[in-house]
Amino acid sequence: MEELMPLPRVILQPMVENALLEDLGERGDITSLALIDSDVLTELNIIAREAGVICGLELMYLAFKLIDKNIEINYLVNDGDRVEAKTIIATVSGRAQALLTAERTALNFLTLLSGIATQTRSIVDEIQDFPAQITCTRKTIPNLRAIQKYAVRCGGAINHRMNLSDAILIKDNHIAIVGGISEAIRRAKLIAGHNIPIEVEIDNLNQLEKALFEGIQLVLLDNMDYPTMKQAVKMCQGKARTEASGGITLKTVKDVARTGVDFIAIGALTHSFKSLDIGLDYLSDESNDKTSAVSHWFKFFKK
Amino acid sequence: MEELMPLPRVILQPMVENALLEDLGERGDITSLALIDSDVLTELNIIAREAGVICGLELMYLAFKLIDKNIEINYLVNDGDRVEAKTIIATVSGRAQALLTAERTALNFLTLLSGIATQTRSIVDEIQDFPAQITCTRKTIPNLRAIQKYAVRCGGAINHRMNLSDAILIKDNHIAIVGGISEAIRRAKLIAGHNIPIEVEIDNLNQLEKALFEGIQLVLLDNMDYPTMKQAVKMCQGKARTEASGGITLKTVKDVARTGVDFIAIGALTHSFKSLDIGLDYLSDESNDKTSAVSHWFKFFKK
Amino acid sequence: MEELMPLPRVILQPMVENALLEDLGERGDITSLALIDSDVLTELNIIAREAGVICGLELMYLAFKLIDKNIEINYLVNDGDRVEAKTIIATVSGRAQALLTAERTALNFLTLLSGIATQTRSIVDEIQDFPAQITCTRKTIPNLRAIQKYAVRCGGAINHRMNLSDAILIKDNHIAIVGGISEAIRRAKLIAGHNIPIEVEIDNLNQLEKALFEGIQLVLLDNMDYPTMKQAVKMCQGKARTEASGGITLKTVKDVARTGVDFIAIGALTHSFKSLDIGLDYLSDESNDKTSAVSHWFKFFKK
Amino acid sequence: MEELMPLPRVILQPMVENALLEDLGERGDITSLALIDSDVLTELNIIAREAGVICGLELMYLAFKLIDKNIEINYLVNDGDRVEAKTIIATVSGRAQALLTAERTALNFLTLLSGIATQTRSIVDEIQDFPAQITCTRKTIPNLRAIQKYAVRCGGAINHRMNLSDAILIKDNHIAIVGGISEAIRRAKLIAGHNIPIEVEIDNLNQLEKALFEGIQLVLLDNMDYPTMKQAVKMCQGKARTEASGGITLKTVKDVARTGVDFIAIGALTHSFKSLDIGLDYLSDESNDKTSAVSHWFKFFKK
Amino acid sequence: MEELMPLPRVILQPMVENALLEDLGERGDITSLALIDSDVLTELNIIAREAGVICGLELMYLAFKLIDKNIEINYLVNDGDRVEAKTIIATVSGRAQALLTAERTALNFLTLLSGIATQTRSIVDEIQDFPAQITCTRKTIPNLRAIQKYAVRCGGAINHRMNLSDAILIKDNHIAIVGGISEAIRRAKLIAGHNIPIEVEIDNLNQLEKALFEGIQLVLLDNMDYPTMKQAVKMCQGKARTEASGGITLKTVKDVARTGVDFIAIGALTHSFKSLDIGLDYLSDESNDKTSAVSHWFKFFKK
Amino acid sequence: MEELMPLPRVILQPMVENALLEDLGERGDITSLALIDSDVLTELNIIAREAGVICGLELMYLAFKLIDKNIEINYLVNDGDRVEAKTIIATVSGRAQALLTAERTALNFLTLLSGIATQTRSIVDEIQDFPAQITCTRKTIPNLRAIQKYAVRCGGAINHRMNLSDAILIKDNHIAIVGGISEAIRRAKLIAGHNIPIEVEIDNLNQLEKALFEGIQLVLLDNMDYPTMKQAVKMCQGKARTEASGGITLKTVKDVARTGVDFIAIGALTHSFKSLDIGLDYLSDESNDKTSAVSHWFKFFKK
Repeated sequence: MEELMPLPRVILQPMVENALLEDLGERGDITSLALIDSDVLTELNIIAREAGVICGLELMYLAFKLIDKNIEINYLVNDGDRVEAKTIIATVSGRAQALLTAERTALNFLTLLSGIATQTRSIVDEIQDFPAQITCTRKTIPNLRAIQKYAVRCGGAINHRMNLSDAILIKDNHIAIVGGISEAIRRAKLIAGHNIPIEVEIDNLNQLEKALFEGIQLVLLDNMDYPTMKQAVKMCQGKARTEASGGITLKTVKDVARTGVDFIAIGALTHSFKSLDIGLDYLSDESNDKTSAVSHWFKFFKK
Repeated sequence: MEELMPLPRVILQPMVENALLEDLGERGDITSLALIDSDVLTELNIIAREAGVICGLELMYLAFKLIDKNIEINYLVNDGDRVEAKTIIATVSGRAQALLTAERTALNFLTLLSGIATQTRSIVDEIQDFPAQITCTRKTIPNLRAIQKYAVRCGGAINHRMNLSDAILIKDNHIAIVGGISEAIRRAKLIAGHNIPIEVEIDNLNQLEKALFEGIQLVLLDNMDYPTMKQAVKMCQGKARTEASGGITLKTVKDVARTGVDFIAIGALTHSFKSLDIGLDYLSDESNDKTSAVSHWFKFFKK
Repeated sequence: MEELMPLPRVILQPMVENALLEDLGERGDITSLALIDSDVLTELNIIAREAGVICGLELMYLAFKLIDKNIEINYLVNDGDRVEAKTIIATVSGRAQALLTAERTALNFLTLLSGIATQTRSIVDEIQDFPAQITCTRKTIPNLRAIQKYAVRCGGAINHRMNLSDAILIKDNHIAIVGGISEAIRRAKLIAGHNIPIEVEIDNLNQLEKALFEGIQLVLLDNMDYPTMKQAVKMCQGKARTEASGGITLKTVKDVARTGVDFIAIGALTHSFKSLDIGLDYLSDESNDKTSAVSHWFKFFKK
Repeated sequence: MEELMPLPRVILQPMVENALLEDLGERGDITSLALIDSDVLTELNIIAREAGVICGLELMYLAFKLIDKNIEINYLVNDGDRVEAKTIIATVSGRAQALLTAERTALNFLTLLSGIATQTRSIVDEIQDFPAQITCTRKTIPNLRAIQKYAVRCGGAINHRMNLSDAILIKDNHIAIVGGISEAIRRAKLIAGHNIPIEVEIDNLNQLEKALFEGIQLVLLDNMDYPTMKQAVKMCQGKARTEASGGITLKTVKDVARTGVDFIAIGALTHSFKSLDIGLDYLSDESNDKTSAVSHWFKFFKK
Repeated sequence: MEELMPLPRVILQPMVENALLEDLGERGDITSLALIDSDVLTELNIIAREAGVICGLELMYLAFKLIDKNIEINYLVNDGDRVEAKTIIATVSGRAQALLTAERTALNFLTLLSGIATQTRSIVDEIQDFPAQITCTRKTIPNLRAIQKYAVRCGGAINHRMNLSDAILIKDNHIAIVGGISEAIRRAKLIAGHNIPIEVEIDNLNQLEKALFEGIQLVLLDNMDYPTMKQAVKMCQGKARTEASGGITLKTVKDVARTGVDFIAIGALTHSFKSLDIGLDYLSDESNDKTSAVSHWFKFFKK
Repeated sequence: MEELMPLPRVILQPMVENALLEDLGERGDITSLALIDSDVLTELNIIAREAGVICGLELMYLAFKLIDKNIEINYLVNDGDRVEAKTIIATVSGRAQALLTAERTALNFLTLLSGIATQTRSIVDEIQDFPAQITCTRKTIPNLRAIQKYAVRCGGAINHRMNLSDAILIKDNHIAIVGGISEAIRRAKLIAGHNIPIEVEIDNLNQLEKALFEGIQLVLLDNMDYPTMKQAVKMCQGKARTEASGGITLKTVKDVARTGVDFIAIGALTHSFKSLDIGLDYLSDESNDKTSAVSHWFKFFKK
């Protein structure tokens, strides 16, 4: 399964374990335990009920396997694949009790990440005729950043900083506190060493001039109108790469791309989204001994 | 602060600690450490940039306090309050370095939960002339269920099951596997004891008749057309309470309420949403000794 | 193994891992490491030394498997089964070093839970001619509630609330603080929604009248004398189910049941108990190369 | 508070946090949240309802403080103190909501450990005229060993091994596998170094002779009849200290002590016990503004 | 205290808590508990017994505070400061029992990190006349990377990658597997986006030519002889920055710096080191009531 | 694999998981993911580049297996074995991506522990003609004590206390606070029971006399000159075992052993060391379909 998802399982498994514990409560799935005999087997199809980009198969896989390692899972698509409505994504088979217990956690991961990948892909597609790349931000759902950023990659965009520690991004507040963009850049360079990238938020062309003079190679053009942005891109030619940000949406992204920026940052990729509608169809069920199919709990209560 | 949020801090603090660790990386906020001297103080306003319902103040509070316990936070609203655009939600003051470090994590919680509370409130308001209550589902974001369900309550709706362990919900798949709705209900009753509620998913009036015959007091009317739903509600009068579910949206919720159901379940409350736009305004900054304001790291690198 | 215990392994495994770490210390089982060569194999019987109800087989299983996944375990009984003294519960075979290392942790779980299940069963049996069901309380051993409540189910009783969050139980202190039973019930109903059960503690028949008037369907008759309790049961007929509580023991439980209550809550099921006496018998041992059977540590210390 | 309990808080706090999370569930104490206004204050007495030895005050303290750090707690006794029935152990005051939320977790620790300390003390007292010391075993409740062994100390007994790593205890199975008691002792000595104690289980006097010949200074006389035990003690005079074990109870402990053994090991100290009956009495309540005392949740649901 | 260490406490506290638990065992500091009365106060000086660079004060601070929050700590130096032998680093005062309990954990952090900072500083000083900067590697002690890398910064050097996720470093094995340096660089660029730095390991000048042709701006010159390295530096002039690596030591670092490289990577900074000798001097002790100074445990054992 | 390392995997696995998470960051090994196709297989030799004692094979094993359970590992030596330079320690084969991802974490454990075992062995060898045994101290690297102490055992030395809870060591500070060595020993004996060893630090012969008078059987001769130490050893003959401590090194250890002490404690075994130089040689690589060897990420970015 390792091929499916370039995030190592050692990162994903604790997330899935915690999500299962969250959904199981202290008694487990009492409905299935009460109703279904433990030897009833069944099979189900996991189906996209609408078109989109699939993401999160490994997490779904782990949700089923951590409940019952004998469940069999066969993928018919891979993470990052676009699917049409009614596409069967995977088939899953095993004990009905276990399948029903894991179902919601498996789907919660899959529909969330597929929703993010799908929205990302639609924005990436919107500017396919432009060289600009779409990027996410740090505006993520707390404690899910690793997999949200993965979903963004599956949607064809790139990631911005993973955290506060892997790049320097000088924002307006830093500049105001330090007392000037040039001083801020000089300080940043002093500690950046050889593998901490520096990016500077630019609010106007005057600032841009100073930043370029200090040798900055990546600038964030924040909330600029298109003509100013275009002018900024021109000034950076051959000197620095440019990134646009500030309330950009599916509707405006093409206009932004037209200014010639290299990157377009969109916070909504990870903070506002619609889950992709994915459901389960139960195909069949067979018990080793149907007529005696009594749930586990029966025996404790029959006097 | 305990009055703000009826979720005990012992539940919330680990979430905020993990979110901070996620955003800090292994070096912390290198931008602020590199640029800002540790004795520079500042103050900021947390402002709703659009109208909505506020939720998550305690989580925001913890994000700032866990970075620097000397930060001062004053609330101007409470969780569950509706605010207009440009409302100041809180003021926060302390060391600029610490404020900038905690900012994103604090806002990620606040904008997420306020977005959920706001969407919930708009749906609750839509049916204010009907007795029906809106309820969420288990379609939540993995590992955030406790706070998402809290946001739903702040938006004026009620919660469905918190997990698989606190209620029996007999769905179509259970019925199919057991071999009949009457048998399923009988099995559930055997183990339910005195404080596990039982609810049964009903797909047609024939099933409903059987369920009522078995003495069921809560039924989930799933994906029914309005006339059938109305008929079901009538059949349940004085015998069982009714809950509607199945792709209900802000647009259709009033039509559903009109059928007379007691509860309306909407998965999108927690799986698909727009974060509320909330930002920070930096007001001022003052250092004990501005002219010597050099960042901590300087001394290590000046030879 | 999943059939044995309706608590998913994702809940049980962390408990067993922590218990093993607690018993291993930082060096592991130095006695076995010092004395026994790592290739010596043995087999053992796990035997009930007194009659009782077995509970905790899956936890025992995990204790052995987490020390050495090659250990073989065969069950001869299931959780919830009654056994006579000298019954062999399971046979376990594998490396002697590993078996001896896991033994105490495996037995600590098994004897604890079997003790609870056994005590529960004896009380359940005591009232087998009455319709009342025995239930536990929240008076559990900290951090073991999930498995203690499971043992109670294995003993044939039902569970009360799992925690403070899954039902409303209005007690005398709440009533005193709110200022009246009727007001307390009205407040509870306002937030209970459709799947939070409400139960009210009743100290006298006057309170009961008020509670029934407010439509309460489950009442806790606390520390009532038998005639009053009988009267209370009569008043509830067709309106509410009744639960008795307050220092009930094996000796008094039949008298309580005779009053006609539906449920009888007994805190001692989980807070005061005798572990069931279960031990290991070592059957044999065989080493691949007995004459050279030197412990692992020898080589480091022979100069 | 540190004087109360010689177990550092860094060990105890995680246990209490987990116990609170276990009891709070994902919504917290919904009964108190629904019924009681957050500004109602109250005071309560923690009272021993039967005579015994108190143990666990620090854990009780943490349970209240972790729910609301403004709760005030005053102790009237210390861990290890004997109290009569109806003794007030401590007074606790603060917000009624918080007190009711923490109550059960606080009491679960206190009644459990006091029960263990009380049982231990009664056995220690039984042999007060003999020099023998009572000791516990590794037959503890999984994941509570540190505090159970502390309760044993509070009851006046001493601890046996804390875990498998801090002493060598050669049992019958080790001897059987190694092929002889002399060889087993020689192997143990080779790795024991200077601060790993060695103890050998002795089943008969022949074994004892061999063990003493090998220079063993501590022997465990397992399941011996009293005359043999007495003989064994005599043989050990001036050479080794003796410990008796094997199903010893309050009834038989004096007879065992009479044999002259130095230590008496009793597993039941930690595996079978009765919690001490300790309860809360609510004294009064006062709200800042009683007539407007509405619970927090009201505002969300009033339309 | 926040000024001392630019690593947020939320990162450091779990490390210190775990280290304390590791040293406390399940009974705590039995020596101090047995011998010293809990109200004896004392004061101690923390003294560098040899010259060096101090690092880890915040971790030392937390070790004392987590054992007893009433301990007072006054720093006389800061992290990154050079001190002579016999310099008093800090004074610590409070309960003698608590100070003795925390002492070893506090010192283990302080001596480890000061040792690393000291060794780093001596290498940084060795090349102070050259522009090259010293950098560490990922050859760190498992689970201590964040604080080891911090100690490297305190010693005046910079950090290389914090982990596998924040930069691309193409090594010889990658090149061999991909089948060529040019192809490897092209693949890396495709996914690097705008803030993942790319560095390429170069074994010979032929490879360097290809890398520069592909536009690489940072190269790692691995195990080159000095003339070749010098030639490589010359070829990179104005195109790429250069980093030297491969068994460089305090003895050879000046020769490496002389080649004109920009960065010099030394694994031994974090994988091989001598702790700095730092100890405690106890100054005095005073008890509230010295004549009655009996340890806490006495009372349990006096019959 | 269990034979390799007498530390149970339940202790080791969390350490390796945390170390992997530390090195993976939130995106995993982006270099290997970007460059290498997931179906490329390779094989590598793990080679000691210098002579030494190997330690940590199980940790290395887990690092590879936790990244990809299909990786095959064959050991050619065991923990505790001495190897010459250029010895192949193990061969590892599997997916190239996975091998490269796990490589650094695997080696960080192996080189650290082998370095400690090697240094320990060289000191043990130095005194092979004397009966004294070398022992480590509690001066360990925080959170790595269990495996550092294991490495010390692999190097042929014994362990001192694992933590503060498993033995009483009365030091000069305790004696000063209690007010005398005799009183300190009496207090210690009162609580030591039968399996807590007592050791007393001795600074002069006067103290020694008192300690022996109190019946102490283990003394720590701290920072004594050789003639005094020799005299102390003589005084202890037949009464107590002796341990030397205080800045002892490879150079002085033989002189110390010559005094006749039974044990020699050396803190530097675990606080100051050189990692053993161990590296990987990649042998070959083969892909299922080399010509189409494109990395996983390619497909997301090709428009």
